Amino acid sequence: MKKLTDYDFPADLKTMSEKELELLAVEIREFLIEKVSRTGGHIASNLGVVELTIALHKVFDSPKDKIIWDVGHQSYVHKILTGRAEGFDDLRKFGGLSGFPKTKESEHDAFDTGHSTTSISVAMGMAAARDIKGEDYEVIAVIGDGSLTGGMAYEAMDNLGFKKNKVIIILNDNGMSISKNVGGISKYLGTIRTSHGYLNAKKFVKDKMDGSKAAKSIGKGLASFKNDLKYTLMNNPGIFFENLGITYFGPIDGHDLKQVTAALEKAKGLNEPVVIHCLTKKGKGYTNAEKYPRKFHGIGPFDPETGEPLKKSELPSFSKVMGQHLLEMAKNDPDIVAITAAMGEATGLKDYSIEIPERYYDVGIAEEHGVTFAAGLAKEGLKPYVCIYSSFLQRAYDQLLEDICLQDLHAVFLLDRAGVVGADGETHHGIFDLSYLNTMPNMKVLAPKDGRELQAMMDWANKENGPVAIRYPRGVCVNADLYDQEEEFTPGCRRVSEGEAIEIWSLGKMFPTAVKVKEILDEKGFNCGLVDVTMEKPLDVSPFKDCEPTYIVTIEDNVIAGGFGDNLANRLLDEHCHILRFGWPDTFVEHGTFEELADKYGLTPEKIASSILKFLKNDLEKDGIHIGKKRSE
Amino acid sequence: MKKLTDYDFPADLKTMSEKELELLAVEIREFLIEKVSRTGGHIASNLGVVELTIALHKVFDSPKDKIIWDVGHQSYVHKILTGRAEGFDDLRKFGGLSGFPKTKESEHDAFDTGHSTTSISVAMGMAAARDIKGEDYEVIAVIGDGSLTGGMAYEAMDNLGFKKNKVIIILNDNGMSISKNVGGISKYLGTIRTSHGYLNAKKFVKDKMDGSKAAKSIGKGLASFKNDLKYTLMNNPGIFFENLGITYFGPIDGHDLKQVTAALEKAKGLNEPVVIHCLTKKGKGYTNAEKYPRKFHGIGPFDPETGEPLKKSELPSFSKVMGQHLLEMAKNDPDIVAITAAMGEATGLKDYSIEIPERYYDVGIAEEHGVTFAAGLAKEGLKPYVCIYSSFLQRAYDQLLEDICLQDLHAVFLLDRAGVVGADGETHHGIFDLSYLNTMPNMKVLAPKDGRELQAMMDWANKENGPVAIRYPRGVCVNADLYDQEEEFTPGCRRVSEGEAIEIWSLGKMFPTAVKVKEILDEKGFNCGLVDVTMEKPLDVSPFKDCEPTYIVTIEDNVIAGGFGDNLANRLLDEHCHILRFGWPDTFVEHGTFEELADKYGLTPEKIASSILKFLKNDLEKDGIHIGKKRSE
Repeated sequence: MKKLTDYDFPADLKTMSEKELELLAVEIREFLIEKVSRTGGHIASNLGVVELTIALHKVFDSPKDKIIWDVGHQSYVHKILTGRAEGFDDLRKFGGLSGFPKTKESEHDAFDTGHSTTSISVAMGMAAARDIKGEDYEVIAVIGDGSLTGGMAYEAMDNLGFKKNKVIIILNDNGMSISKNVGGISKYLGTIRTSHGYLNAKKFVKDKMDGSKAAKSIGKGLASFKNDLKYTLMNNPGIFFENLGITYFGPIDGHDLKQVTAALEKAKGLNEPVVIHCLTKKGKGYTNAEKYPRKFHGIGPFDPETGEPLKKSELPSFSKVMGQHLLEMAKNDPDIVAITAAMGEATGLKDYSIEIPERYYDVGIAEEHGVTFAAGLAKEGLKPYVCIYSSFLQRAYDQLLEDICLQDLHAVFLLDRAGVVGADGETHHGIFDLSYLNTMPNMKVLAPKDGRELQAMMDWANKENGPVAIRYPRGVCVNADLYDQEEEFTPGCRRVSEGEAIEIWSLGKMFPTAVKVKEILDEKGFNCGLVDVTMEKPLDVSPFKDCEPTYIVTIEDNVIAGGFGDNLANRLLDEHCHILRFGWPDTFVEHGTFEELADKYGLTPEKIASSILKFLKNDLEKDGIHIGKKRSE
Repeated sequence: MKKLTDYDFPADLKTMSEKELELLAVEIREFLIEKVSRTGGHIASNLGVVELTIALHKVFDSPKDKIIWDVGHQSYVHKILTGRAEGFDDLRKFGGLSGFPKTKESEHDAFDTGHSTTSISVAMGMAAARDIKGEDYEVIAVIGDGSLTGGMAYEAMDNLGFKKNKVIIILNDNGMSISKNVGGISKYLGTIRTSHGYLNAKKFVKDKMDGSKAAKSIGKGLASFKNDLKYTLMNNPGIFFENLGITYFGPIDGHDLKQVTAALEKAKGLNEPVVIHCLTKKGKGYTNAEKYPRKFHGIGPFDPETGEPLKKSELPSFSKVMGQHLLEMAKNDPDIVAITAAMGEATGLKDYSIEIPERYYDVGIAEEHGVTFAAGLAKEGLKPYVCIYSSFLQRAYDQLLEDICLQDLHAVFLLDRAGVVGADGETHHGIFDLSYLNTMPNMKVLAPKDGRELQAMMDWANKENGPVAIRYPRGVCVNADLYDQEEEFTPGCRRVSEGEAIEIWSLGKMFPTAVKVKEILDEKGFNCGLVDVTMEKPLDVSPFKDCEPTYIVTIEDNVIAGGFGDNLANRLLDEHCHILRFGWPDTFVEHGTFEELADKYGLTPEKIASSILKFLKNDLEKDGIHIGKKRSE
């Protein structure tokens, strides 16, 4: 039998019969489960778009026609169907296939995505370019119902409905997104699914809803809807989109190839912006993923039979420690409110959301609203804890600055996945946060190196005033169990060992690296000082004043520009001290493990030590600086 | 007769009769015209909310009840009615009343606003705090139809419609916003105005629409609407809001005190989120402003009789030079597309929008969409020129980084109002852009000091690849007429004069300050070098290599953290050179003229020179550095 790697996709698709395409869908699902169970990745969302992706490549001509995948983690099937099946053994590995669309990887990837809710804006830009140049191609944006909670989607539809460039928007509605969907628009879509949708795709909706929790909550939602709205929906389910000036088709069964193909063909024939409302099931065709779509959203390697993860760590993740500790804190402090932007489970808030639902707000994929909502809570005396990935908080830069910091409001930001994150790569590395937080007046910035420090910082932040950001890395942490057992911890700058001419200052998780750099340099006859920094802003430079080294080496898991090293340099302007900064350079860092990336960009202990020695060599020769001499000697 | 300053507001309002309140409205309008014509300010929007603000303070009890003014420039009437009439002689002056709500100024200002589209999120936060604490007060958000084009409003309504905290949203719909309104939602509101609105507020709408251009464009919009939508609107004009789960009242005549008061009372009696759709007229009651609402949006001192500005400069503004030059460029280059976010006139694009409408996109107050839309255009080979104020581009931080820089797309960002902007103050100063742009890989950052350089940089950028940002200040510029007459200009770092131990590097508009600092220091016996920097990223440090000064002084109109000085320091890591950085400190800078603020924060030539001397004094004494000695000597 022909394997997926043997086809000449997408060309071969065009000649396949309906029956063959249906078999292809089965094959793709098997392939995805086999491959992703070994590499890890976003399996559930890809299983949900198999038929949709086949239909897209059947009806449209990529790369002439442009397909924009919102967020982009659902582009695996698209990668298979554009000649990249071969690469799936190295999916998300250093040097291997990316888990997201990358224009550098293939001409079929029309645009790099990674953060949610950009696809309609991109598609409108491409369509406008086409119309201005008088060219002729199709532009298709594939966006999930979760992404529709982001304001950019609305801004784009509002603009598109007015300007009328032809764009085909596929609303891939699995009623789910990453977390459980929230918000009026989800209720609205739920109503379409259960009323109008039922008429069109009866069996599908029945399968989907029966016995599920979703059915219950949608049932509740329905009850609160006005009769006239229900009446309207029965007659025109897409009125929300049509209000904005965009033609609506649907809902259709997104797993029925025939239905999807027909809808795409119909949209292709029109000359106006269109939304096709496609109902799909996350994890479709793989029982484990259908049952636990959130667990299978983004997952490490797993046993395809049982669905259980292959590697289970004994250690808890930073996220889990954060979530559990926040829950304990909130039980004792009625002023604490947890906020997340569609990342409740991923940021460790699942138990919290169940135990204290009245002080838990999942605002949808709406970081901007989430941060300003927190500002309103804080202004009235509550203590919001805003749990968002570092790279996604970039969306709320302006709100952090203008709505939180300007009024010095007491809100705590828990920046999960700070630093490089590994397999998700460029768009997900949280390596800019120190730079943007450092410019914000009133902001305090902390970085724990282990679970104990994270917990202590949260307690410390709770008693503070003004905004506090705590940035912690992806993955597991040590010492979480030591909290309450060891002496009290206060964030700041701690001198670990006194040295001579050279002193290493490391921030948060980079401490073990710093220890190794010291070992290497000490072996060469330097006697390095070591300072462990856990509060980056405001930065306490008193350890410097005690020792006055000639050279300070800073090590951080952030870009160098505007980061910890720059911040320290700004605090020591009046001092004759050289500051050698180690962090990520002025370039986008690809996917790979921390070790692989550190090696490439010179951040392993060995490479840092070697860079320091190279730098010192010049100085030693030129200025005759004595190894091991203090500045004051 | 009792003057506005004689009342005890808001208490006195409660006892006034309907007739008295109507007289009060007249008085307030006279007061506003008299005062703002002298100080300058946002006159048109305030004239439009006189009755609405009176009704708000009549029905609600500030400060117990919280009124959130979206954007906030329409809060003058609110300031008058909360005991601040006295302060209007110093409105927007250094040390005087702010032109925006400031919690520090009055307990009646419930939240600091300045950037658009935050009010519903803030209000929901406050309402959630109230509900969690079991307290009892009202929260009211007043938001214009223009702000409704921003995605945050949608994110907030989506979340609010789901969570159902009681918030009263006043949609202050003048069909206008700052620029002419664009987008599907505006069309939708227009339809309400002309169909359903007509039934409720017949005369008002008639007055408003007859003979105006708006009527024509709304007429066109109507034609493109489907019959069933029109039918729906006639039966339920607020279905858009109701879809999101928010109860809708309206439309009502926002200048009819009785109608507004009744609607507010009705909303007060309910226990759910409500939107009251209020139709108002920008500039109401002042013929000049009614006629030219955009001209009177934000205006300097003017003659109240004629409406003409009191001070007319002979020199063009940077904005005007930018707009005119872009128009010339676009006439010769069919790939150029101009984009603005509801700031067409203010950024100088009025003529462009009239002459090349097919390559002009006003995306609404939607900076996020605007930037990603530009990414789509650029990906398909066009050259977007995105014209947005520096402080508003903060909204699109993530989109700049992820959608533009990641793919190194050729888009040009024209950052108007970079640096401190004067009377608009804290929220409008564009003093963070260098810091956030410096961390973005692939981004180039330019800063012209005059009109000639701005034009040359735009031409230079047009031939470049990848993203380019040009930041230029508010206000008038010299030398615009010299372009094409002088030798070709290339941005970079230019050595103006060679010095000895001290060298001053100034960025863009700070050059005249740097020249004066040099004069002062030269008089003291130093022979300062001077370098004029017009390209801040990537930064050419070759002038340093030529001279190797011991001290470099950097001067910039940006916060110090992560700005030009930090960037230069990062380029000179291997050098034994001290860098003294002058810019804005780590605090929020209030409103005031550049001179007043420079004096307060030590950025006048005299204060900079004096700080340098103070720093050098230590070094001279300690290390015996010879004045005027080069490092290499």
